[in-house]
Amino acid sequence: MSLTLDVLRAAARDIAAAVSSGQMSARAVTAAALGHVDARNPQLNAFTDITRARALAKAAAIDAGHAPRGALAGVPYAVKNLYDVAGVVTRAGSKINRDNAAAATDAFVVEKLEAAGAVLLGALDMDEYAYGFTGENVHDGDSRNPHDPRHMTGGSSGGSAGAVASGMVAFALGSDTNGSIRVPASLCGLFGLKPTYGRLSRRGVFPFVASLDHVGVLARSAGDLALAYDAMQGRDSGDPAQAAREAEHVLPLLSQGATGLRIAVAGDYFRRSGRPECFAAVDAVAAALGATRDVVVPSAAAARAAAFVITAAEGAAFHLSRLRQRPQDFDAAVRDRLFAGAMIPAEAVLRAQKLRAWFRGRINALFEEVDIVLTPATPCRAPLSGQKTIEIDGADVPVRANLGLYTQPISFIGLPALTVPLWTPGEHLPIGVQIIGPPWREDLILRVAHELERKGVAHAPVAP
Amino acid sequence: MSLTLDVLRAAARDIAAAVSSGQMSARAVTAAALGHVDARNPQLNAFTDITRARALAKAAAIDAGHAPRGALAGVPYAVKNLYDVAGVVTRAGSKINRDNAAAATDAFVVEKLEAAGAVLLGALDMDEYAYGFTGENVHDGDSRNPHDPRHMTGGSSGGSAGAVASGMVAFALGSDTNGSIRVPASLCGLFGLKPTYGRLSRRGVFPFVASLDHVGVLARSAGDLALAYDAMQGRDSGDPAQAAREAEHVLPLLSQGATGLRIAVAGDYFRRSGRPECFAAVDAVAAALGATRDVVVPSAAAARAAAFVITAAEGAAFHLSRLRQRPQDFDAAVRDRLFAGAMIPAEAVLRAQKLRAWFRGRINALFEEVDIVLTPATPCRAPLSGQKTIEIDGADVPVRANLGLYTQPISFIGLPALTVPLWTPGEHLPIGVQIIGPPWREDLILRVAHELERKGVAHAPVAP
Repeated sequence: MSLTLDVLRAAARDIAAAVSSGQMSARAVTAAALGHVDARNPQLNAFTDITRARALAKAAAIDAGHAPRGALAGVPYAVKNLYDVAGVVTRAGSKINRDNAAAATDAFVVEKLEAAGAVLLGALDMDEYAYGFTGENVHDGDSRNPHDPRHMTGGSSGGSAGAVASGMVAFALGSDTNGSIRVPASLCGLFGLKPTYGRLSRRGVFPFVASLDHVGVLARSAGDLALAYDAMQGRDSGDPAQAAREAEHVLPLLSQGATGLRIAVAGDYFRRSGRPECFAAVDAVAAALGATRDVVVPSAAAARAAAFVITAAEGAAFHLSRLRQRPQDFDAAVRDRLFAGAMIPAEAVLRAQKLRAWFRGRINALFEEVDIVLTPATPCRAPLSGQKTIEIDGADVPVRANLGLYTQPISFIGLPALTVPLWTPGEHLPIGVQIIGPPWREDLILRVAHELERKGVAHAPVAP
Repeated sequence: MSLTLDVLRAAARDIAAAVSSGQMSARAVTAAALGHVDARNPQLNAFTDITRARALAKAAAIDAGHAPRGALAGVPYAVKNLYDVAGVVTRAGSKINRDNAAAATDAFVVEKLEAAGAVLLGALDMDEYAYGFTGENVHDGDSRNPHDPRHMTGGSSGGSAGAVASGMVAFALGSDTNGSIRVPASLCGLFGLKPTYGRLSRRGVFPFVASLDHVGVLARSAGDLALAYDAMQGRDSGDPAQAAREAEHVLPLLSQGATGLRIAVAGDYFRRSGRPECFAAVDAVAAALGATRDVVVPSAAAARAAAFVITAAEGAAFHLSRLRQRPQDFDAAVRDRLFAGAMIPAEAVLRAQKLRAWFRGRINALFEEVDIVLTPATPCRAPLSGQKTIEIDGADVPVRANLGLYTQPISFIGLPALTVPLWTPGEHLPIGVQIIGPPWREDLILRVAHELERKGVAHAPVAP
């Protein structure tokens, strides 16, 4: 059977259709994808574990009719290595976790994807314990940007972005605490979705900051985001933070487009401290959508500061026994951030939590006036791998902290957000625009992303 | 016009009916109540501020038809002195707050009661900043138990309990963070209601621990609790913790009684560490209701410990500037508790918050099996005023902390709870039983309380 579709560039939807109809075998798709992983991964360092036997067995089962041919039949995907995968150690980017037993079962959302017919190729590189924005990892090596391997992927879901942007998989799971899906999606030219806090179950996902952790997905189109996102929805008793809501599928809604939505560009904080290209990207999106409205997201800087406090303190509380017992086995930079977090007094954390409640109320009120808010996803394109500072407004500012400048205040209150990739003629690296919606309205942000794709404003080509 | 009703003993409902029908004037009711305050308050020290002019003006307005004759027409009431009352300084039991300007407007729930025709007689004594369970106050003096003034009222809503139990008012507002309504209701022989966290707006109520503070009411019958509670319901933008729920009136439901409800007695933690009389009271209630089921509330001791941590840390964070600037003006015992709270590391608070989320999930699951849980309200009857320890199981344990033994784990997760008063023949002091329901089901606990009253098991006589 010959390949009738370029599976390394095809949409998940098209792969699933070809496999379901028998036009292509799942084995052929899987073999092509694994071959591409073998070819590209040594340079890009996206994968930490390749689950070849599992992938081939799953593909054979699909072809034999022993596994479901669902909405993702035969679609190759991979997961950030903080998702439990049966038989694989959930290392979460760390050295310390390598001593743990392999996971006995898949994470809840992996189970859901498997049930839809998707084929897992392996686990992906990430910043240690998800505490970073660069995709750099001292234990597993840095993930590299497929559009130019001299540059970083961004993080912490760096391997996830690299695997999708290079065509090794059709989509990948990431996680987002302060921007860890949206930042690498922006730097690697992908669509990246962080759903509403509490939407998807985090059972079997290694935590970082429980009150901020989200699971989500990176893909090369809004349609594929929606396809994977719909497959992962569903109630589960394993994540106490999951909201008591039934699945609300978005794929059928995408064709509604953006007409009639009240779309605003965020000013003030979200119009400062970035390089000109990030604002130009927002302006291009706003123009394409006919958005003429501006809004100010009040106290965004204070919200970001509070997110830093809660991240460090809650992260330190979670890692406390590891910090005490094995400090030498942490990445030194991550360890120092966590040590700093352990010394934050309770009063500062309580103040940050109070600000969070206040900020949530203000932003919810803002979403009574508008449906969508547009901001840059990152203040710059992908820096070079290892680059420590970046020039913004004539000053050198630290790369790591500033990559999350625009994402951090948004995840802080759990709003659904995604990034769409834009390209400037003459530039080989992309930059993302963040599309933010009110709680539980993933449908709105995905409709806008789909519309931008339809208009040719946003697109996510596989890296050459 | 002569009094046709003993207004010092009458139910709020009967007073309102008499005033609304013109059978009695609001002025006559108010004058009688104020006279009783003048007679009894010097001994009982329930009031810190008597709003005589306001009360007489309101009564005159009702009689003249210039103020509404609602469900509480002419009913005398008073509020713990942490509720804003226009023209009165909200001292919250403290010396420091006396330097504040008088409140410009009434608290939200006071506005609601006023709109229903109630007549405010003044503000009531309380533990400093609500951080206590005894009703003792070094600045304003201790409130005294009307059933025996040698004994404490319990607190922190001590003046509220004293004013109602002595017949000075038909009902009083208290607040409950760890048990501050239920404890004095138990010790003074009253019905005391703490609604679900987020039910009633706290706008204009001086805070203590924002994540635990509830407003509520003490009265001499379940019917009067329901009447006042119904009048206070309603959405308000002034309390960010208020849930987005419409009013759910309970008074029309009381007559449904307790038949058909699955009522269980809490064992384990709630069957230990109290004096025999508190368990005997629970058994009497269970027998009257035909409740034969037992349940275990898991990890109640851990929940109480976590409530202590959150109370101290969050209370300290709230009072930090006052602790820094005016430590000498605090009650020394309260100051030391707050100083201890200021030194709790963030990690301990985060752990306590995590336990809270877990505990909430467990107890919500328990309420799928039962409708009502019964526990003692306090482990003992009212100790003597100034008494520091009480003998339980042959050991002397501290009075203050242990008065909240059974209430603290319940308010920690915001469940609606009320106490009903029981009396043992030959004993002149009462003891309360706590009736706990699932979130938002104030109707169930009030129906049970009403049923116990109807059966003569629980009753709240005015102190002789």
